[in-house]
Amino acid sequence: MHGGTRQPPSPQLLLQKKIARVTQKRKKSSAISLSSACFRRAAILAGHRSRGQVRSVGMAANSRRIVFVTGNAKKLEEVKQILGAGFPYEVVAKKVDLPEYQGEPDDISRAKAREAAKQIQGPCVVEDTCLCFNALGGLPGPYIKWFLEKIGPEGLHRMLTGWEDKSASAMCTMAFSPGGPQDEVLLFKGIAPGKIVDPRGSRDFGWDPCFQPDGFEKTYGEMTKEEKHEISHRGRAVRAMQEHFLKQAEQDS
Amino acid sequence: MHGGTRQPPSPQLLLQKKIARVTQKRKKSSAISLSSACFRRAAILAGHRSRGQVRSVGMAANSRRIVFVTGNAKKLEEVKQILGAGFPYEVVAKKVDLPEYQGEPDDISRAKAREAAKQIQGPCVVEDTCLCFNALGGLPGPYIKWFLEKIGPEGLHRMLTGWEDKSASAMCTMAFSPGGPQDEVLLFKGIAPGKIVDPRGSRDFGWDPCFQPDGFEKTYGEMTKEEKHEISHRGRAVRAMQEHFLKQAEQDS
Repeated sequence: MHGGTRQPPSPQLLLQKKIARVTQKRKKSSAISLSSACFRRAAILAGHRSRGQVRSVGMAANSRRIVFVTGNAKKLEEVKQILGAGFPYEVVAKKVDLPEYQGEPDDISRAKAREAAKQIQGPCVVEDTCLCFNALGGLPGPYIKWFLEKIGPEGLHRMLTGWEDKSASAMCTMAFSPGGPQDEVLLFKGIAPGKIVDPRGSRDFGWDPCFQPDGFEKTYGEMTKEEKHEISHRGRAVRAMQEHFLKQAEQDS
Repeated sequence: MHGGTRQPPSPQLLLQKKIARVTQKRKKSSAISLSSACFRRAAILAGHRSRGQVRSVGMAANSRRIVFVTGNAKKLEEVKQILGAGFPYEVVAKKVDLPEYQGEPDDISRAKAREAAKQIQGPCVVEDTCLCFNALGGLPGPYIKWFLEKIGPEGLHRMLTGWEDKSASAMCTMAFSPGGPQDEVLLFKGIAPGKIVDPRGSRDFGWDPCFQPDGFEKTYGEMTKEEKHEISHRGRAVRAMQEHFLKQAEQDS
């Protein structure tokens, strides 16, 4: 089904069970809802409000929302599809003009999430994608979009002509800010190891045709969307985020 | 003397004459000094002060200063050496933590100068260097420092193995902000065309050993400092800035 040589176990199934468990607990509980609990904590952490002040905030209309910063409706759909219906927050998309920074991927993600939180003034998630060539010490990494724009997938493969090592990692970082300017930003990362190949398959999406994940004979560009989500860097990052919030929800309920 | 096949005309000489002319004019003039004139205009442009208010500001202790944003004392010396003693401003260095942005080189420079002005609250210059490979559509460009850090000058040359075209441009942009947050940022650019070669010469300074400017048989790394300043991208950018301020000084006096 995946057209590859290895079938990774589906974390989706495990999480669905977890979601059912948490939902059950929430129904039984007469205490404050999961989302308001999270938001109260975020507000307290942010130092904006004392414990006494936050209950009403937790009940506000937008308290169950996380803003996913993207101008790409397709991306929102992809993320929502992976999160599934049981995710304890409503995820809405908003296009926000954010500067893109240079630096190490984690630092870039943190700075971007902080800037987004400043503009949105509430919980938000920003997403960053890197394509890291091992021969180039992890580069183009966060600058991959500029390279793709200038030389296309063929050029990306061609850049490695001088090296035997064509291995690479596709990395997605989802950076969550609770909303306060000084709040700690949480990073959820998904890494897919693979190699850079001469492009094959659909040209619809970025560098997909030149990235072949380990354990598969197909490039991302040759996979169906479902095949790709199951193993992709973005899928892994979104599931890491999902897992965190479900765990927190369990603790809160 | 330059060890090359072509002797470029020295713009330094032309500028020295200009400096002498402006200095002469300034001595004769009983009007406000050159620097205070410039600063008044900057302050008015910035919308901070009316024409009536700025005279005193123009006379303030730091009114003849431009802050060159760098933590590198060597770079300040290099720039001051190129500007020469007749430059109508005192150039001082200050290390300021500025975010580095992604994007087109001009946009990066403008954003950085604006951010620097916000922090310094006065006239300042930021400098950016790009090494643009033509085969890669101008990349690594503004990201060259990360590539140099990860793969060294050998790696930079090796990245072009897949292409016949090894041509490249070294580009320096000096971005001047008069100091106000909304002030127009002026860009002074110096471009040195050349090619990327297997590294030769001194390893002291960045990617110098793998860049051979057009018309020379030596890499930057094989030249003396003086040879390099005369033809380098940075030298050209600093002289473009010098020329602008001298021209402005002539108009003001």
